[in-house]
Amino acid sequence: MNQDRRDRLRDAAIAVLAEAGGRGLTHRAVDAAADVPTGTAKNYFPTRDALLRAVAERCLEQYRAVADTLAGAVPGPADARQLAAFLAELLRNVAGPGRPRVLAYLELQTEATRRPWLASLLDPIAASDFAAHAHLLRSAGLPAGPEPTRALTLALHGAIPHLLAGAPATLAAAGLDDLDRFTADLLASVLPRESR
Amino acid sequence: MNQDRRDRLRDAAIAVLAEAGGRGLTHRAVDAAADVPTGTAKNYFPTRDALLRAVAERCLEQYRAVADTLAGAVPGPADARQLAAFLAELLRNVAGPGRPRVLAYLELQTEATRRPWLASLLDPIAASDFAAHAHLLRSAGLPAGPEPTRALTLALHGAIPHLLAGAPATLAAAGLDDLDRFTADLLASVLPRESR
Repeated sequence: MNQDRRDRLRDAAIAVLAEAGGRGLTHRAVDAAADVPTGTAKNYFPTRDALLRAVAERCLEQYRAVADTLAGAVPGPADARQLAAFLAELLRNVAGPGRPRVLAYLELQTEATRRPWLASLLDPIAASDFAAHAHLLRSAGLPAGPEPTRALTLALHGAIPHLLAGAPATLAAAGLDDLDRFTADLLASVLPRESR
Repeated sequence: MNQDRRDRLRDAAIAVLAEAGGRGLTHRAVDAAADVPTGTAKNYFPTRDALLRAVAERCLEQYRAVADTLAGAVPGPADARQLAAFLAELLRNVAGPGRPRVLAYLELQTEATRRPWLASLLDPIAASDFAAHAHLLRSAGLPAGPEPTRALTLALHGAIPHLLAGAPATLAAAGLDDLDRFTADLLASVLPRESR
């Protein structure tokens, strides 16, 4: 099978999942989104579970590419201020250009509560996010023990659905209506006082 | 229309959404789950959006009942230790008997990213959760300013999908494999050092 076409179908599946939800993820919708003849998606991914797996594997690839970039060429944030700015940029990406990818991931996450095989596939993505945040904290010269790393990572995970929903009372209650201030305050909250 | 039957259908819709996801939420499935004649759910909630609204309103009612109980008869946690135990109990409920309700809420949350009217309906639920955690912190004699309240609430929100998925590497990375220790550490992380 053709790798380019396979990737195109997987990207189309992400777009369909983001736009139409788990309910809209059908082979026909993926064919239409990828602009390929009807039946193509079914050839590559015969079942709906195979489609979900393709989306999950694509998300994992994209996640690894981002993580590699973070760990490699780009210099990490050098202090708490730069880290706060970096995290605010990540959250702006979630609410902006990254929205389809994050929406698709959120759909996978809810599907995973009913599919142990999908939960296993997503497990390394979610787990390595904690390691990535520990890496960022260390890079910024901040304490990167399990407690601040967990509080920071989980609070960011918790912020994502609220950002995507964009409901005003929740955004205000969470402080997500000002992302620069939000990440600076969050870092200050989760780090031991002596390091702030 | 009959209020008892209406409530029964709404509870059935929550169960269907939790078990089968947004994709499985059909009038026919709700009729079957409520053990009523085919066509009943459609009589009460003519469209799929009306079904979703019914689930959301039921979640809101349940949330308010929990919040009233917390604010009223039951004495609040008296110190950080009792608050940590209380939060661990809440998380055990999420992973245990409360699972269907929380799964349904998670499904509503992803549907809300595509439906502004649903996001508006869920907005007060999510927003008042921040107020509820501030209340718990105050009750325990702990600082209840916006920063610790936000970090605590968002980290708990972020923990929920991980608990529901139950994937071992993520649970270990997040510290969610030991809920008593998790909530004690989380409280210690988000509170100003002098109050710990």
